[in-house]
Amino acid sequence: MSDSSKGLRGIEAGSTAICTVGAEGNSLHYRGYSIEELAAQATFEEVAYLLLYGELPDSTQLKAYIERLQQLRGLPAALRTVLEKIPADTHPMDVLRTGCSMLGTLEPEEDFAQQDFVADRLLAAFPSMLAYWHRFVTSGQRIDVETDDESLAGHLLHTLTGARPGEDHRRCMDVSLILYAEHEFNASTFTCRVCAATLSDMYSCITGGIGTLRGPLHGGANEEAMALIERFDTAEQARTEVAAMLQRKEKIMGFGHAVYKVRDPRNAIIRGWSKQLSADADNAHLYAVSEAIENLMKEEKGLFANLDFYSASAYHFMGIPTALFTPLFVCSRVTGWAAHIKEQRGDNKLIRPGAAYTGPDHRPYVPINNR
Amino acid sequence: MSDSSKGLRGIEAGSTAICTVGAEGNSLHYRGYSIEELAAQATFEEVAYLLLYGELPDSTQLKAYIERLQQLRGLPAALRTVLEKIPADTHPMDVLRTGCSMLGTLEPEEDFAQQDFVADRLLAAFPSMLAYWHRFVTSGQRIDVETDDESLAGHLLHTLTGARPGEDHRRCMDVSLILYAEHEFNASTFTCRVCAATLSDMYSCITGGIGTLRGPLHGGANEEAMALIERFDTAEQARTEVAAMLQRKEKIMGFGHAVYKVRDPRNAIIRGWSKQLSADADNAHLYAVSEAIENLMKEEKGLFANLDFYSASAYHFMGIPTALFTPLFVCSRVTGWAAHIKEQRGDNKLIRPGAAYTGPDHRPYVPINNR
Repeated sequence: MSDSSKGLRGIEAGSTAICTVGAEGNSLHYRGYSIEELAAQATFEEVAYLLLYGELPDSTQLKAYIERLQQLRGLPAALRTVLEKIPADTHPMDVLRTGCSMLGTLEPEEDFAQQDFVADRLLAAFPSMLAYWHRFVTSGQRIDVETDDESLAGHLLHTLTGARPGEDHRRCMDVSLILYAEHEFNASTFTCRVCAATLSDMYSCITGGIGTLRGPLHGGANEEAMALIERFDTAEQARTEVAAMLQRKEKIMGFGHAVYKVRDPRNAIIRGWSKQLSADADNAHLYAVSEAIENLMKEEKGLFANLDFYSASAYHFMGIPTALFTPLFVCSRVTGWAAHIKEQRGDNKLIRPGAAYTGPDHRPYVPINNR
Repeated sequence: MSDSSKGLRGIEAGSTAICTVGAEGNSLHYRGYSIEELAAQATFEEVAYLLLYGELPDSTQLKAYIERLQQLRGLPAALRTVLEKIPADTHPMDVLRTGCSMLGTLEPEEDFAQQDFVADRLLAAFPSMLAYWHRFVTSGQRIDVETDDESLAGHLLHTLTGARPGEDHRRCMDVSLILYAEHEFNASTFTCRVCAATLSDMYSCITGGIGTLRGPLHGGANEEAMALIERFDTAEQARTEVAAMLQRKEKIMGFGHAVYKVRDPRNAIIRGWSKQLSADADNAHLYAVSEAIENLMKEEKGLFANLDFYSASAYHFMGIPTALFTPLFVCSRVTGWAAHIKEQRGDNKLIRPGAAYTGPDHRPYVPINNR
């Protein structure tokens, strides 16, 4: 095989009407709507509806959708028991992977006619799973996950932190969920489609998506960006030390992108939110630190910050522990995954590529006593 | 995109030294050794070692490997609790998917240096998980899964049925595990590689593989073959009624193959075993029924039986409930999956294909009150 096709880079593995990424090197559209307009004007629930059902809801549809999601927040007793059995030091992505798989045994998708229910159920239940486990292992509390918060963003922050968020935090989380919701044939979505193409159930597909997003080459860059920025107390220190890291050819996470060539259109949006939240935050210097690193990377390497970079400080300002950053990605991306699973099912062919063989030629079996 | 590349058919998605499938339309080799020689002369443990470590073991290595696998059969208490919480009517593939994910929280792969341990652990533990859950939900027993059976095949039949198997049953299972162990870039293995390419952990990859194998277009054909053959009391009845099904253009499962064009080399092997076991079996007529259907399909449609077709009667003769057929596939294929995950990690590039966009052009956002 040619080296250029390794990783299927540039090879079309299917068709999609859900999203375009990187047209002109810098744009993102969900079903034709630009990410800038969605992040400025829409709610996450509107975007979830758009991705899953193809069109923006009208106000009656949106009201019904919000109520449906609110009613689907509860966790069955057997699932709560499973979550309580997961050790405190577990990678939180493994918690969601296991919780998703377990819910699939308790409320199986018996028929594809149930696919919208399962998608909505997982969308509503992932924040509950994450918060229930997190609060149980950190404080021993068995929290009530059936809050009356209207938005998923508010529910998420409320259950994770135990306090109803202020509107600036709630809306920042809402926007972050919009930004992370969908990104075409990225690796985790592609896993969902490979799985869906065998006509497996939606829980299997999304469990596979979570496991794929868990990898450090995919999700997790915002956690690594956080680990970087929290090492510095001032912008000057960040500039000096990151410059030294570049000298030593160390990798700086949160910059550049496989698909965007000019800029990541999501960066400016989340940077604005990080700046806004820093005004009232502890560790407010992390915004200035982030800006100093962004500027340095542009000057020294010509690299732009991607969505993950300022998501780190924004999440931190909202009081979210770093280990939960990638699971929040799941709480959002489940919408894109489910939309792709539905789309794959609608025009399906088993995804079964070939391989270039590089192993030994035929060789005769040698009985064990002659080896 | 061209219709021919849909499903990535014929497109090389990577390189492998593990297996060739379908050279000359009819052959299968694991690391250069023909499936016929392996099934006739090797044990499953030898084949697992070959797939995972690249070469057949010598007798010292094999002895150590068998002992290692024997020591890894136990299930942690938290995992047993989780298995007990999974309802009796759950798809058994969902049990293994959840059990695999849960074990990943209890014994995480902290570093790729542990990958061989995790592969061996899952290989040894899947039969235990399956049997523990199956016996618990069917009879309320909490069985001891740490048997002293030397082979995985013996352990599997012993724990599933509660009785130590006779040598013919044990060796038939051993051969079946060899036949199902590996098959190049099939859909579930490809899922494992897409997941592995983000540098995620082995539990995530294999959890995704299980979910993908669960789909009726991939695993499960042997279960459907069983559902077909058990409808008939005689070979004559099978011939008449399957001919009528073909007239009605109904699909007959267990025939033809996406990659083999001439014959499935595994079919003759498992057919021989099914015939041998039928001599002492209840429902021995199912062998003659299977033969009648195989002959008819050849005559009428020019289609050959694949591995799944006679696996159905062979498993049935060993006393295995039909719902557990696809999970047995997991107990074997975990070796191929793990070998591919190791190989992907050894020369990695993120697998991120492109997509052909078929959705709406850019459209302006319309505020909700104007919709």
